[in-house]
Amino acid sequence: MTTPGTFEILNSDPSSSARRGRLWTAHGPVDTPVFMPVGTQATVKAMTPLELDETGAEIILGNTYHLNIRPGIDIIEKCGGLHRFMGWNKPILTDSGGFQVFSLSGLRKIKPDGVEFSSHVDGTKLFLGPREAMDIQRRLGSDIMMAFDECTPYPCTYEYACQAVTRTLSWAALCAELHPRNGQLLFGIVQGGEFADLRARCARELTAMGFDGYAVGGVSVGEPEPVMLEAVRNGVVELPVNRPRYLMGVGVMRQLVESVSLGIDMFDCVMPTRYARHGTAITKARRYPVKAGEYKEDTRPVEEGCDCYCCRNFTRAYVRHLFNVNEILGVRLLSIHNLHQMTMLMRGMRAALDGGRFGDFKQEFLEANKEDR
Amino acid sequence: MTTPGTFEILNSDPSSSARRGRLWTAHGPVDTPVFMPVGTQATVKAMTPLELDETGAEIILGNTYHLNIRPGIDIIEKCGGLHRFMGWNKPILTDSGGFQVFSLSGLRKIKPDGVEFSSHVDGTKLFLGPREAMDIQRRLGSDIMMAFDECTPYPCTYEYACQAVTRTLSWAALCAELHPRNGQLLFGIVQGGEFADLRARCARELTAMGFDGYAVGGVSVGEPEPVMLEAVRNGVVELPVNRPRYLMGVGVMRQLVESVSLGIDMFDCVMPTRYARHGTAITKARRYPVKAGEYKEDTRPVEEGCDCYCCRNFTRAYVRHLFNVNEILGVRLLSIHNLHQMTMLMRGMRAALDGGRFGDFKQEFLEANKEDR
Repeated sequence: MTTPGTFEILNSDPSSSARRGRLWTAHGPVDTPVFMPVGTQATVKAMTPLELDETGAEIILGNTYHLNIRPGIDIIEKCGGLHRFMGWNKPILTDSGGFQVFSLSGLRKIKPDGVEFSSHVDGTKLFLGPREAMDIQRRLGSDIMMAFDECTPYPCTYEYACQAVTRTLSWAALCAELHPRNGQLLFGIVQGGEFADLRARCARELTAMGFDGYAVGGVSVGEPEPVMLEAVRNGVVELPVNRPRYLMGVGVMRQLVESVSLGIDMFDCVMPTRYARHGTAITKARRYPVKAGEYKEDTRPVEEGCDCYCCRNFTRAYVRHLFNVNEILGVRLLSIHNLHQMTMLMRGMRAALDGGRFGDFKQEFLEANKEDR
Repeated sequence: MTTPGTFEILNSDPSSSARRGRLWTAHGPVDTPVFMPVGTQATVKAMTPLELDETGAEIILGNTYHLNIRPGIDIIEKCGGLHRFMGWNKPILTDSGGFQVFSLSGLRKIKPDGVEFSSHVDGTKLFLGPREAMDIQRRLGSDIMMAFDECTPYPCTYEYACQAVTRTLSWAALCAELHPRNGQLLFGIVQGGEFADLRARCARELTAMGFDGYAVGGVSVGEPEPVMLEAVRNGVVELPVNRPRYLMGVGVMRQLVESVSLGIDMFDCVMPTRYARHGTAITKARRYPVKAGEYKEDTRPVEEGCDCYCCRNFTRAYVRHLFNVNEILGVRLLSIHNLHQMTMLMRGMRAALDGGRFGDFKQEFLEANKEDR
């Protein structure tokens, strides 16, 4: 077993910053670039761990904020940690709760050592800061912990973004100090909004603290795509080449390909499973509503040529019927298909990087995918 | 391949009317006594065909009434029939729609050749009678078709039950005449409410028409258990020994054991999947609400000693959490468990019959299960 935290760069694309890597965790290796399905409440929605494994998922994400509220850390700890609680034996990354505190909770009060807020479930007063986030993630037993940060909205003034970077850095320093170094990795998060100098400063100072990996946060919060990609560019440039980089909350296929070429290794997004719940299929060529009436007699699979369980066994007419009559199986089949699609895209990128043809892959992909997916 | 319709009686219990059988259909054999999970809308709720297979299901039920409304028979036929539409390659029994017409639909008008009624979905005027039911079931391609009957409510006057039997017999005769004899089997349905002479007359006259099998219908419609078991006794006594017998809509474990001892071979019920959706587990010893707060820290499986996917991999605390936060996986795991329980009960009865110890099995089971499940 290779030491957790080891990040091997197996190959690099000469024409971009894309790289093919392997990150070792306490629950085994993760081949990058990788997409991480989101298991907010200790379940990737509508999927069993077995099915997740079959879609080719290598690592999933859990949410500190949500799990801390329900079922609570005591219960998960009593059940042997998050892996055993949810029956997933491969790596898990947990976020720090920062994003949810700033996007989901009610009345917030930012204090030097964290944030006081109201639970989105029942309004209970709660407190989350670097100490709490580290303690919870340690007890969850995640393979990759995230430092507690302040996620700024879009748009946001320079002054506010600057203050948030200062707070994020001071909280990151405390997280680094509290890092148990027990095989659980710790990633720092680059904030700074759309401001190049703030992104660069944040990245530089985090790098000086020496994390196992680095994330670009505060993106995919409503900003236009060029602004997002610019933030990635500005965040990445000051990060060490030999450490994994994770772009938080991004899952549009085209953005994944663009971001990999900017040097990103890891992604997470709720989109594949959220689209599935709304009856929308993600395919190589487009995104379309299988639940629409026009597919009611369509005897083709959801995506021709796809070898997922849904496409191997069922027609669009059947999946459309399931949504039309509100059957859970519809959501299940599209969740399987959509997650499989994400895996296939990441595998495609990894194979292109292994074969030294990522430039061609990217060009072909972007030509064929001008639409948001 | 043995001819569809062949019913082998492999063993009989000397102390009761219970028998161990095997019914051959166009999609293979069904070992009896058997429990048939219900796939009302071309899906057993929350389950894939693969998972159904893993629970040990040998045959499932589809609903003519529902499938005729949505998605409609044209679409299912275009997709190659019900088996291919829903991806289930083992036997399917379809009901005739009679039960739903009488229990679910709006304003009804009974006519000599069937029933005019309003769709429960959008109020559309529809008509279903023996001709329509036979045509739809033929096109669905079910392995076992049911004759179109009139299901009487409980309580019901003798006069009304008598008229319903007369109509059921005349419709059954027409169904028998329309039977395509293409490998699809046709079962007649014994009605007659709680009246012994009507049940006996109906059974005798149906037997004279010569069906592939016989069902006892109009039970589990709100009557007390002794009334139900009496109706079974009265229905069965006049049926031919060498043909399979199906008790419609019964799924309480104790009633299954009692009915097998009265000579019933087949059962269907929505209960296992309905309980699952409501967070209730069926176990050998009892029925209990896993979703209740008292299980929130319970690290035992849903049922100790159970080898289903749910019990092999997850705790009550986890399943309870999933229900508490409205995650689909909770319904899925309990559906798997509850259907597995039904299969295990039927396997237990078959093994007891094979081993010549059904009397002991029944006694032990009834001692341990005084509660409704």
